[in-house]
Amino acid sequence: MIGRKLCERLARDGQLAGNRIDSADLVDIVTPSPPSLADFPTTSEAFDIAAPYVAPKLIARRPDVVFLLASIVSGEAESDFDKGYAINLDGTRMLFEAIRREHRLSGGAYRPRLVFTSSIAVFGAPFPETIDDDFFSTPLTSYGTQKAVCELLLADYSRRGFFDGVGLRLPTICVRPGPPNRAASGFFSGIIREPLAGREAILPVAETVRHWHASPRSAVGFLVHAASLDLAKLGARRNLTMPGVSATVGEQIEALRAVAGEAATRLIRRQRDETIERIVAGWPSRFDASRALGLGFTAESSFAEIIRVYREDEYVGPVP
Amino acid sequence: MIGRKLCERLARDGQLAGNRIDSADLVDIVTPSPPSLADFPTTSEAFDIAAPYVAPKLIARRPDVVFLLASIVSGEAESDFDKGYAINLDGTRMLFEAIRREHRLSGGAYRPRLVFTSSIAVFGAPFPETIDDDFFSTPLTSYGTQKAVCELLLADYSRRGFFDGVGLRLPTICVRPGPPNRAASGFFSGIIREPLAGREAILPVAETVRHWHASPRSAVGFLVHAASLDLAKLGARRNLTMPGVSATVGEQIEALRAVAGEAATRLIRRQRDETIERIVAGWPSRFDASRALGLGFTAESSFAEIIRVYREDEYVGPVP
Repeated sequence: MIGRKLCERLARDGQLAGNRIDSADLVDIVTPSPPSLADFPTTSEAFDIAAPYVAPKLIARRPDVVFLLASIVSGEAESDFDKGYAINLDGTRMLFEAIRREHRLSGGAYRPRLVFTSSIAVFGAPFPETIDDDFFSTPLTSYGTQKAVCELLLADYSRRGFFDGVGLRLPTICVRPGPPNRAASGFFSGIIREPLAGREAILPVAETVRHWHASPRSAVGFLVHAASLDLAKLGARRNLTMPGVSATVGEQIEALRAVAGEAATRLIRRQRDETIERIVAGWPSRFDASRALGLGFTAESSFAEIIRVYREDEYVGPVP
Repeated sequence: MIGRKLCERLARDGQLAGNRIDSADLVDIVTPSPPSLADFPTTSEAFDIAAPYVAPKLIARRPDVVFLLASIVSGEAESDFDKGYAINLDGTRMLFEAIRREHRLSGGAYRPRLVFTSSIAVFGAPFPETIDDDFFSTPLTSYGTQKAVCELLLADYSRRGFFDGVGLRLPTICVRPGPPNRAASGFFSGIIREPLAGREAILPVAETVRHWHASPRSAVGFLVHAASLDLAKLGARRNLTMPGVSATVGEQIEALRAVAGEAATRLIRRQRDETIERIVAGWPSRFDASRALGLGFTAESSFAEIIRVYREDEYVGPVP
């Protein structure tokens, strides 16, 4: 979803980091749709980055900028240990190695910008009330472990000069468009998206649950900003917690009420789910993202603004 | 050196974690010498843990306790990128995978204790004056990166129940026995060991340089304690900064003077080395090792005690 929106944004901008976009190669596990309005050529191909032949093939084209968003989600990485490590760790490492190979073959001239999407899952409870930029990574999932390992590799490969890497720990993206999915975090989007469309949504946790959010538009903004960031300001610490909005579920519902009225909030059905409650209890609730803010990354400043962005970018249902 | 001293300690104790030692398999890149006084059978073999056939072969014997000390040092991991990742990261991961395989083959019954030696090189400057137990890992060497990755894998494999892992970040070990080596940290031991034996030593940095030390005896004590630690007290955060002594080079020399007199300190020749000064400037100087202390790990309480331990355990030269 973020990859698709990034392509649309790049097609609209026509440029990235001050350079006209000559071409773009889109790769996913299923053939991705090219953006509709790009005035540069695009290719779309389906590859599995866990297969060793893939990364060398993709990087042989020597792209100036690589956006690496590929990974399987937290739940699948937990239920399938081998697949999670093969895709989320080895797939990333093979891409890093393919870049190092082209860097060497080019006599050091090839050194692309690499923007990697990490996750706040690199943090594991117990947390302080607000997580600072120098708090340690002690993930409690294999997914978070794989992301934390990739962050370390990204910093080392950057320090050695093989590529210029930036790792972005994305907040939980909200409001996600499309039908409800079964991710444990799905309800954060569901309790906004579904009532706005006149449909019922299930809330499986207490209204006191607090979490960290940004819109899909902000996520794309983070990626584009990272591609043009002045790396001299970044130094050796290449992985950044992105800014976001800390909100309780109660505050989310209040924002929905302000936008769509009491009737919309009545479509939220409380139905506690112990499994989801237990998972969500291990998630962080608030960050001090001073470093990223100081480097010019921006997100919404309230949950009401996140809903407004969703309505501007996505909302196609009846006006409540 | 630590591996050899660990074997001697285990031979002396005859037991580990309350259990009589039945046998021990010693493995190194060159055939290790068995301890002289063990009353249990030992094997000694030379293997390269970077070779994929090695870990499955070693773990097929299903040892109850695995001490994993194998790695190439910081300088070599920096000068030979491929070798460092192959041994320090992939070698460790293949051992973890071999244990996971035996765990699965045994229907979950095989779940050994695994004690891994990490390093304070997982930390990278700039530091606070004292590094807390929740300070983040941002290594500035490939060696530190490889150790930090192994720490993350150890925690995840432990969380999944494949083994019971404990990672120990050792201080810089001092006083090392034997001839001077070319490690950047070598002078910390050299300025004590050489003058005690009536020989000259070179000091390549200023006396104001502060660093974090423990004796070889303490290092062995950490490993033995980790093998018997009650894991319920450890929780999910399996990697611990070990206690030590924070001392400046000036304080080291003062301790030498108190033990061996003014004549010994006159054998220290000041000869600044900019390369070593630059490397050492990136090293941490002090830790708050509260967590490890609370779990019962102990080290020396002064640099004078570190010298005393060296004289008890190693010193064979003339009494000054």
